[in-house]
Amino acid sequence: MAITLAVDAMGGDFGPRVTVPAALSVLSASSSIHIILVGQESQISPLLQGIAPNIRARISIVHTDEMVTMDDKVAVALRNKRQSSMRLAINLVHDKKAHACISAGNTGALMAISRFVLKTHANIERPAIMTALPTEHGRAYMLDLGANVDSEAKHLVQFALMGDVVVRALEGIAQPRVALLNIGEEEIKGNELIKQTHQLLRASALNYVGYIEGDGIFKGEADVVVCDGFVGNVALKTSEGVAKMMAAFIKQEISRNWLTKLTGALAYPVWRGLKAKMNPSHYNGASLVGLTGIVIKSHGSADSSSFAQAIKVAIKAVEQDVPALIQQHMPEQQ
Amino acid sequence: MAITLAVDAMGGDFGPRVTVPAALSVLSASSSIHIILVGQESQISPLLQGIAPNIRARISIVHTDEMVTMDDKVAVALRNKRQSSMRLAINLVHDKKAHACISAGNTGALMAISRFVLKTHANIERPAIMTALPTEHGRAYMLDLGANVDSEAKHLVQFALMGDVVVRALEGIAQPRVALLNIGEEEIKGNELIKQTHQLLRASALNYVGYIEGDGIFKGEADVVVCDGFVGNVALKTSEGVAKMMAAFIKQEISRNWLTKLTGALAYPVWRGLKAKMNPSHYNGASLVGLTGIVIKSHGSADSSSFAQAIKVAIKAVEQDVPALIQQHMPEQQ
Repeated sequence: MAITLAVDAMGGDFGPRVTVPAALSVLSASSSIHIILVGQESQISPLLQGIAPNIRARISIVHTDEMVTMDDKVAVALRNKRQSSMRLAINLVHDKKAHACISAGNTGALMAISRFVLKTHANIERPAIMTALPTEHGRAYMLDLGANVDSEAKHLVQFALMGDVVVRALEGIAQPRVALLNIGEEEIKGNELIKQTHQLLRASALNYVGYIEGDGIFKGEADVVVCDGFVGNVALKTSEGVAKMMAAFIKQEISRNWLTKLTGALAYPVWRGLKAKMNPSHYNGASLVGLTGIVIKSHGSADSSSFAQAIKVAIKAVEQDVPALIQQHMPEQQ
Repeated sequence: MAITLAVDAMGGDFGPRVTVPAALSVLSASSSIHIILVGQESQISPLLQGIAPNIRARISIVHTDEMVTMDDKVAVALRNKRQSSMRLAINLVHDKKAHACISAGNTGALMAISRFVLKTHANIERPAIMTALPTEHGRAYMLDLGANVDSEAKHLVQFALMGDVVVRALEGIAQPRVALLNIGEEEIKGNELIKQTHQLLRASALNYVGYIEGDGIFKGEADVVVCDGFVGNVALKTSEGVAKMMAAFIKQEISRNWLTKLTGALAYPVWRGLKAKMNPSHYNGASLVGLTGIVIKSHGSADSSSFAQAIKVAIKAVEQDVPALIQQHMPEQQ
């Protein structure tokens, strides 16, 4: 199957310097992929100098001078930047000229423009952001990660249904274990939202395994972890913060004196293994689920191997036709 | 100043086997401390065999056969277990027979009983759970960690005020940087609760530095991080989960083959340094703030050095008379 992807070449902290090499590495790995690079031609073209003709033939450029910045307000990006690289990339999905779009740009803008251009499925009120996280035994998918704050119980149930479909499609798990993120320390477990959602999920056809606490995610207690976007985003950012702090501590400890420097250097294979397991580039590529088209969000700070991973997530979603699966499996509006 | 502490000897996963040795280590380090061990005398007394008379003289035992279990429902612990070691330890604080109480037991029960017995200060509607967390540059205090779900803006402001007082007292920071936990990824930053609280904190006399994201906590961007108990508990548990997973990954990587085993063993000083920095026992001891007396919660899984740390947090809170400081600094009811 020939797959065409629209890449917002200008998005992220590094723009074409990261997005173009990432696109090239994906193109050289798979001959059935075509990529449309959307952005400033004068920045993109120099990066395509000297590449093999069989790769160059599968690249097209859609030029625009306009782009969404990380600081742009969502309303500005949506209303005033109709020629931005992000908007044009999403338009290509809408116009069936691309199967999916990938951007490392402003998340709020990406969600708002995607929702405006592509719309949600009939029975989904709110799209969600979903990503894979490492666990002690593999990976878990979590949603929502920040598209929705102040979610209602019915929204969390829709997230659960979408997460189930996506994990079955992307991971080939027949009956993903779906869990609801909750806390265990308060007088009466959970807030009102959680209690209502718990009842609805228990009554659903999902393989609902009940509540999960924050530490349970990383123990691999569930395949799909459902939460409101505020809570999910805090959990995600907190996890990243702890991992970075531990990495910084390890560096500090190694540089403490000659002995730690020496033994630290000798233990390089251990670090390499740890890095491979924690590597954010293995987990880059969050899906905006619930839309009629495929939109993948890369970390803004992604390097090219990490951005390439986000492109691969898009390819897998295209191959499995995730939007159609979600559409099929969503029950009629509750 | 002679300080008397009531220790719930039965609380936590290990009961007297952890709480009694922890008490003994604190007693031997400081001659002005007295400890009342509350619990089953037949389990406690054997652990006091052969200790120095000058330490034994500063220990008393309040015997009871009843105890709160980790599985007890809060209502059961509160209403039906009026002779539990936890309840009696809190009663000692209420009756001015102890300056503070320390328990590793059921958090929900500890909060409910403490609140029932000790009451909150006049201008505080809800007590909160607060603890120190490691950061790249020192430590940060976070509250609420699970006492309150569905907090309102005025509650979060009260948490901020209490956090400010406690950090000034315990850390000697003149103007603690107070931040509000928020997310950066959604269309319009934050939910309604956060936006309201932000306005109130901006108008307060606190050194309010604005929003903080989950990763900012560990970068040391604030001294006091304020959030609803649901969000705070998820963030705390998530952090613990990531740290444990990374530790597990390091172990896995070291045991991978003879080379990694050898170099991993040689790098022991690095691990030791990392462990010391991340050591939960350096951060054990969460304060139940907002009550008229001092109650410190230890992790249920604490070992004796970790439980001793929770006792030291209690001592510091007594020395600084934290409840009186909070009482003084709370403005009249909003």
